[in-house]
Amino acid sequence: MWTDGPLCYGGDYNPEQWPAQVWSEDVELMRQAGVNLVTVGVFAWSRLEPAPGRYTFDWLDRVLDLLHTSGIRVALATPTASPPPWFSLAHPGALPVTADGIRLHHGSRDTYCAAAPAYRAAALRIAAALADRYAHHPALAGWHVHNEYGTTCHCEHAAQAFRRWLADRHGDLRTLNDAWTTSFWSQHYSDWAQISTPRTTQYLPNPGQLLDFRRFWSDTLLAAYTEQRDLLRAANPALPVTTNYVLGDWVPVDHARWSTEVDLVAVDHYPSAVDGGAEEQTALAADLARGWARHAAAQRPHTPSSAASTWLLMESAPNQIHTAGRMHTKEPGRMLRHSLAHVARGSHGALFFQWRAPVGGAERFHSALVPHAGPGSRVFRETVALGAALRRLTEVRGDVEASVAFVVDAASAWALRHPGLPSTLPDHHDELAAAHRLLWRAGHACDTVTPGDPLDGYRLLILPALYLIDDATARWLGDHVHAGGHLLATYLSGVADEHARVRLGGYPGALRDLLGVHAEEFHPLAVDDHVRLDDGGTGRIWAETLRLSGAETILSYVGGVLDAMPAVTRHRVGDGTAWYLSTRPDDTTYRRLLDAAARAAGVTPVCPGAPEGVEAVRRRHADTSWLFLLNHTDGEQRVPARGWELLRATPVEDAVALPPGGVAVLREHQG
Amino acid sequence: MWTDGPLCYGGDYNPEQWPAQVWSEDVELMRQAGVNLVTVGVFAWSRLEPAPGRYTFDWLDRVLDLLHTSGIRVALATPTASPPPWFSLAHPGALPVTADGIRLHHGSRDTYCAAAPAYRAAALRIAAALADRYAHHPALAGWHVHNEYGTTCHCEHAAQAFRRWLADRHGDLRTLNDAWTTSFWSQHYSDWAQISTPRTTQYLPNPGQLLDFRRFWSDTLLAAYTEQRDLLRAANPALPVTTNYVLGDWVPVDHARWSTEVDLVAVDHYPSAVDGGAEEQTALAADLARGWARHAAAQRPHTPSSAASTWLLMESAPNQIHTAGRMHTKEPGRMLRHSLAHVARGSHGALFFQWRAPVGGAERFHSALVPHAGPGSRVFRETVALGAALRRLTEVRGDVEASVAFVVDAASAWALRHPGLPSTLPDHHDELAAAHRLLWRAGHACDTVTPGDPLDGYRLLILPALYLIDDATARWLGDHVHAGGHLLATYLSGVADEHARVRLGGYPGALRDLLGVHAEEFHPLAVDDHVRLDDGGTGRIWAETLRLSGAETILSYVGGVLDAMPAVTRHRVGDGTAWYLSTRPDDTTYRRLLDAAARAAGVTPVCPGAPEGVEAVRRRHADTSWLFLLNHTDGEQRVPARGWELLRATPVEDAVALPPGGVAVLREHQG
Amino acid sequence: MWTDGPLCYGGDYNPEQWPAQVWSEDVELMRQAGVNLVTVGVFAWSRLEPAPGRYTFDWLDRVLDLLHTSGIRVALATPTASPPPWFSLAHPGALPVTADGIRLHHGSRDTYCAAAPAYRAAALRIAAALADRYAHHPALAGWHVHNEYGTTCHCEHAAQAFRRWLADRHGDLRTLNDAWTTSFWSQHYSDWAQISTPRTTQYLPNPGQLLDFRRFWSDTLLAAYTEQRDLLRAANPALPVTTNYVLGDWVPVDHARWSTEVDLVAVDHYPSAVDGGAEEQTALAADLARGWARHAAAQRPHTPSSAASTWLLMESAPNQIHTAGRMHTKEPGRMLRHSLAHVARGSHGALFFQWRAPVGGAERFHSALVPHAGPGSRVFRETVALGAALRRLTEVRGDVEASVAFVVDAASAWALRHPGLPSTLPDHHDELAAAHRLLWRAGHACDTVTPGDPLDGYRLLILPALYLIDDATARWLGDHVHAGGHLLATYLSGVADEHARVRLGGYPGALRDLLGVHAEEFHPLAVDDHVRLDDGGTGRIWAETLRLSGAETILSYVGGVLDAMPAVTRHRVGDGTAWYLSTRPDDTTYRRLLDAAARAAGVTPVCPGAPEGVEAVRRRHADTSWLFLLNHTDGEQRVPARGWELLRATPVEDAVALPPGGVAVLREHQG
Repeated sequence: MWTDGPLCYGGDYNPEQWPAQVWSEDVELMRQAGVNLVTVGVFAWSRLEPAPGRYTFDWLDRVLDLLHTSGIRVALATPTASPPPWFSLAHPGALPVTADGIRLHHGSRDTYCAAAPAYRAAALRIAAALADRYAHHPALAGWHVHNEYGTTCHCEHAAQAFRRWLADRHGDLRTLNDAWTTSFWSQHYSDWAQISTPRTTQYLPNPGQLLDFRRFWSDTLLAAYTEQRDLLRAANPALPVTTNYVLGDWVPVDHARWSTEVDLVAVDHYPSAVDGGAEEQTALAADLARGWARHAAAQRPHTPSSAASTWLLMESAPNQIHTAGRMHTKEPGRMLRHSLAHVARGSHGALFFQWRAPVGGAERFHSALVPHAGPGSRVFRETVALGAALRRLTEVRGDVEASVAFVVDAASAWALRHPGLPSTLPDHHDELAAAHRLLWRAGHACDTVTPGDPLDGYRLLILPALYLIDDATARWLGDHVHAGGHLLATYLSGVADEHARVRLGGYPGALRDLLGVHAEEFHPLAVDDHVRLDDGGTGRIWAETLRLSGAETILSYVGGVLDAMPAVTRHRVGDGTAWYLSTRPDDTTYRRLLDAAARAAGVTPVCPGAPEGVEAVRRRHADTSWLFLLNHTDGEQRVPARGWELLRATPVEDAVALPPGGVAVLREHQG
Repeated sequence: MWTDGPLCYGGDYNPEQWPAQVWSEDVELMRQAGVNLVTVGVFAWSRLEPAPGRYTFDWLDRVLDLLHTSGIRVALATPTASPPPWFSLAHPGALPVTADGIRLHHGSRDTYCAAAPAYRAAALRIAAALADRYAHHPALAGWHVHNEYGTTCHCEHAAQAFRRWLADRHGDLRTLNDAWTTSFWSQHYSDWAQISTPRTTQYLPNPGQLLDFRRFWSDTLLAAYTEQRDLLRAANPALPVTTNYVLGDWVPVDHARWSTEVDLVAVDHYPSAVDGGAEEQTALAADLARGWARHAAAQRPHTPSSAASTWLLMESAPNQIHTAGRMHTKEPGRMLRHSLAHVARGSHGALFFQWRAPVGGAERFHSALVPHAGPGSRVFRETVALGAALRRLTEVRGDVEASVAFVVDAASAWALRHPGLPSTLPDHHDELAAAHRLLWRAGHACDTVTPGDPLDGYRLLILPALYLIDDATARWLGDHVHAGGHLLATYLSGVADEHARVRLGGYPGALRDLLGVHAEEFHPLAVDDHVRLDDGGTGRIWAETLRLSGAETILSYVGGVLDAMPAVTRHRVGDGTAWYLSTRPDDTTYRRLLDAAARAAGVTPVCPGAPEGVEAVRRRHADTSWLFLLNHTDGEQRVPARGWELLRATPVEDAVALPPGGVAVLREHQG
Repeated sequence: MWTDGPLCYGGDYNPEQWPAQVWSEDVELMRQAGVNLVTVGVFAWSRLEPAPGRYTFDWLDRVLDLLHTSGIRVALATPTASPPPWFSLAHPGALPVTADGIRLHHGSRDTYCAAAPAYRAAALRIAAALADRYAHHPALAGWHVHNEYGTTCHCEHAAQAFRRWLADRHGDLRTLNDAWTTSFWSQHYSDWAQISTPRTTQYLPNPGQLLDFRRFWSDTLLAAYTEQRDLLRAANPALPVTTNYVLGDWVPVDHARWSTEVDLVAVDHYPSAVDGGAEEQTALAADLARGWARHAAAQRPHTPSSAASTWLLMESAPNQIHTAGRMHTKEPGRMLRHSLAHVARGSHGALFFQWRAPVGGAERFHSALVPHAGPGSRVFRETVALGAALRRLTEVRGDVEASVAFVVDAASAWALRHPGLPSTLPDHHDELAAAHRLLWRAGHACDTVTPGDPLDGYRLLILPALYLIDDATARWLGDHVHAGGHLLATYLSGVADEHARVRLGGYPGALRDLLGVHAEEFHPLAVDDHVRLDDGGTGRIWAETLRLSGAETILSYVGGVLDAMPAVTRHRVGDGTAWYLSTRPDDTTYRRLLDAAARAAGVTPVCPGAPEGVEAVRRRHADTSWLFLLNHTDGEQRVPARGWELLRATPVEDAVALPPGGVAVLREHQG
């Protein structure tokens, strides 16, 4: 298993882009850098199978042998994320179609419909050929299926598959009509054949159809994955199989659901914020990945607890943050700090896209460990330094300790982006990020959970605009609070059921009793508007006419039509407590509320003495713990701590001094 | 006739969205609220005809009987605005096609081409089935055909119909080529078959083609309406028939032309401004509706004058103003104030979309009289209060007295939005709204008229960028002024003829003599630019090099290339006067000009003592008049008046005190 | 030859838009204005060939005879830029197709695919018919083929032609795969049939394919031109043939390459800036046109040097600057000043679109010499004045003297707009304009050259983000500097080769040695961001981690990660000097750097005594020179000069006084 050995270090290696003479330089540079794991073969389909059924494996033989000889392990990829031009020419009906009905063409990557039988057959064939040849190659550490599953399609193949999936999910049309509320606007279906994918239509689309279309694609892409996985696993059951997740609102993938089907949760992470936001995004992405890993482990009996939360950062950018309009070059030291932030949160190493910058192609300016300027460069020097640092962290293992958990749900995120909502501003992921960021700044460790996950050990659950709550989830949340747990829900949580149908009788239908409130009316705010709160703070995005039915008022609105009405409430339920935020407070008020909720729940910061801007994360295994300290500030920082600092191999008696941008990792005294 | 009895109150009722047990609660709540008219069956096609030719009327039988028993009248709708999925599957060629050639799919509403024979046949069939069964049902107050006609299409059916319509309009190709100026860019048509709808083309399209395409759709949709109307009328000539207009720039409907074909002008109104703008938009929409009603009456000999200007607000939103990005919740009392503002301007009641908020579907968050929270809610309490208020106004009737009229023309609005104009800023409706708003603030009552309408009683006509003026309209305007009337035209009025061809010899060709000016050149202004005027004010959007040929200068430009040249002029023509504004003045200057023009024309405010922010409208029938006073301010206001206040049933001796947001309706002493 | 006689004056004349009675007024007004050359027949196809193969030349006979009688010469156009509707109906497959696969329709102009055989055949047929009839008509001064070639297409005809062109360019697929780096993302082509035009695809497209697609269209449009040219030339070898270039980033035409195929470089110029920017754009456009003329002449042995740099302004707007959203009306005198600015820079006259403003059609509001208001207008009076001015300049000839040259390259401009670059901000033309504008303000005359052009006489070469540099161009630039020349390159110059492949080993690969620097990393800046420089100035758009390898630092960065690193460098190479700017300095710093580079290179302003805002351009022929002085300021300006002022026919002893907006043209004493 990849996660058995030392921390993984390396990334996407694409020898097919270079003449063979470059390969030996590659291996020598990898050795210098301490690279121990590379992904080979992503996007190499046209090089491996230049014509249907004709394979050219000689170059890959040489590459794998060379890597094996050099002690570098390989995650061998199936190249199915980019069919060769010959495939597209032979199967134009397998090219993807947009909601407008426009058929996309070859010339980029991912130009296939994953529901097209011809594509699925061709993908399985190349996967089988690779399995036949390499399943027992000694270089292999495992299989990397495909790359960043995330496409959708509206072709006739997709429409047929959608209808089959719907029949499977809903059983009969009566159930589907009810779930989609087709009584509105005369959309009652009397025959499965009448249903199409949500193609561009005259006016507002049906939200039930939109939601099921996303679910259908998550399951369809997963089926494309699992059929490759099963084939690869059959060829050598000892090799683990996974695929790398791409994150983003547009991705039609329920990662929690997928995580039960991969042998290791693997995540690509590319932050989009240039300033401190990149570090906050990194922490959240890693917490999500770890949450998916734990979710999967919870469903597998007998997962050893040490492995339960392990995952892998499969791709990251060596030297750039991609923002709208331009690539921001990372400051010196930031690559290492980002990488160790992932390791601190459970990644078994740090991989990058890609090893060597190409001369051409669409991503010719994507950053690389070996940049266009070559190894005589800052980036490559930092690459070598990162390799050394990771080697010094070999002993680190175990889970992050957290007693706060965010409830995250892909379907809620999707449904909150549908047209026809009271506002376009609320967003499950944005709400998650807003609260996560404030807890991160306050030094708290957070987990993420999927509805239904075990909640042992969590003192505080946060529901960030968890829009869709089915009855089972409502019970799961109620049980947590009734058992003495704490919970904080933000606006729009529990408003709708699993089909995105509004629960009647006052919002939020699924949580009304638990929260001890009901909202009569929503007051969505304009993008530049705010409401005032009676602690002097403000609220954005949303407000509500809120009535108490058991809860007490913590903060009230001031002024306007909501004057003196409750804005934030708290409801004592036995030993448990349920907070409700009907608006998005400004950062100061929000942090104060989160602090209060955390304190009441008995949640304490990871490292209470760490100054603002120093990220502290603790991993623990058995009776050993490791404290990661990452100084994201421009100044030197001093943090009270004791232990053995692994990166510099020095003892720390009472405090560690972190230079600007510096990192320390302490093996702590047992306690 | 709907307008014979008490004021109508109710809205869209969709029992097909709910189980039968809800229906009895509905009727009980309607009784509480005083609802007396509901529209039933809009969008119920798939429930009424679940398969081609198979009808399920039992539920509608029960609903109509229940309503009738409860004394609630019904506007029975034909459900043709949303064909069922079985229709789309059977007739894919009847799905609409965009200018890009993209065929839209089922999944929303209005997914048909109104020129497709299969659609028209299916629509007539369901209408006939409804007529057969219900034309003599005692619950029926009338027919509500379709809903918000407003779609266009570019499919081959549409293209063929367009060619037939063009042949009908222009007679021969020579005339069409001339009207469209096809000598420009080699567009001469030598065969009707060469003409398509204005599909997406390489570069700027032909403006004549664009204009006729809109006219074609107005007529085609009207034909779809009239063929249903004729069928329904034949089934029971005693029942009135109408359809509800949707307002908006995108709507290809010439409402004035349509109004001669409906038995009652019915309008849906959804303001888009959150602040006072919603009230201004309400006043304008109501004045437009009344203008269409008067226009129709003028063409029907023997319309009783009391009915001439009656119309009906067929849809409005109980609790939301829909703005870009979010729904704004109406403040307490605002629903009533908006509703009475419509009644003050001639609406025979106030109807809403919709009765009960649905759990799902595209408009699951559209506001409703019975909201998601149920009847124990502010909205439902205001619903009950509005019902009571409307009952107290039963005696109100007659026309609004206005001596100012705006000339409104759908084709001018369409043509001013064509590409290739000197600026994208000028807009007929925006120009109309700008002047109407200032006169509204100044307390003046305004009418709207269609070119050619009788002008008896109007002292001041306003032409708001009335871009297209044909020879007959030019004479009609000239006759008004020569007979001693006053007229105020804003820039771009009369620049083009009915085919959007520029009239040569100096702008504005159709009005040059009447205005006593001619403009050599336009000076369109950048969106953030302005010109200075010699009263200290400024002008936006537009300016002109204006030469006097009989007129006198009222305001001049200051600075720049137009320094000291005329900006606003006045031309005495016998006893009449014609003003011209070559720019859009700032509000202060514009209001001063409008005041001057009104004063000179002998126009006085409705209620000279009403403070700013209190809207005053007077309706008169025979020797009785009713004065509506609506306090749109946050403070109490006192208005000098005498009479009997209907809402509180109290006498008013010398003044009425209006609480913040309050309304009074006085039956005035005869005068 | 058009350029043999007096300066050309006139423009597009479209008698087909008017009844015959207007023609005589036209000719009379042309006579008043001094018009001596009109382009006839652009867009007249449907009037000339109303049905396939049926010609109606009678009206054109009359028009040509009338013009000839009146002494007005004619550039007779082939009307192939706008096929008649009958063509589109008969050949729907010749209508153009977008990258989305959407087929555009008739209804504008240019609705054809220039690779469609049916279109090419029809275009040749009408050209042949015109040649047969008019090649020896005495009115003809030459042929004006088509109009503003600039369309692309993605239809199957285009795809086939693209494949043929690629086979021709690359020879074999191995070469193409290498040029396009198809090893990235599995895009290896194994059969020509697999290649399509760059249709809309799933994600980022291939930059090599994008670049070749532009080149293909440049060559395809050129072939459409040359086949008409050859036919016309065969009919009468004495008549010159050309076509008018349209400028703009979207135009897929390599004007330098085309210029070797036209008998006279003819350019349409429509500035887009309202303020002084219009004058700066005018100067640059004229310098580009002259550069293309010189480039062509350099490739034709025995071109008389007097004719080498002559070109013609074929279209400009009499009275409008078209900006986004609105047309800006030109201030009095500006039409003349723009026209003489072109003449000063080598245009043999000034032509306009169009003679008479049409009543309809897409461009009904485009300005015209005879406006809608008619000849009794400012515009027509200025038209008459301009004619008189041009007549007084008959003697002017010869080339502009310039010792600074910008290296301009269409492919670099195209490649810098591809997706996937480090930033969307850098732009070859914008970079060119930025430096050209500052030199223009400083009073320097500039040429433009194409890579490989003779460089005799240029002291300073400027490379404005000359992104693509092939090996030959690198040698050409090196030779210039090694021979003692000066050179100034801005960021991103020389980064890639002719296939847009990045040159490895440190940027900019093609210029590293010449500049004595290499850049390790790019630091693209956000759109509203800047870096500080150690002269107190700032840089925008771009920055780099720059290492010296022979150069010296002129300016350094201040602050941030680049603190104290070189920003601007200078490298002495023998007697030559090579400057490098790794950022875009603010105007003050940039002008200071350009001044320093110019001074060091021995470059002096055209007229050192001219105040800022007075443009000075000198043309010289044999031992006579003419100095154009254009006062673009609002104030009177005094310029030291001696000679004979042609416009007022007065001697100038020591200085000329220019009124606000005024122009003077001095025949200077020989010196």
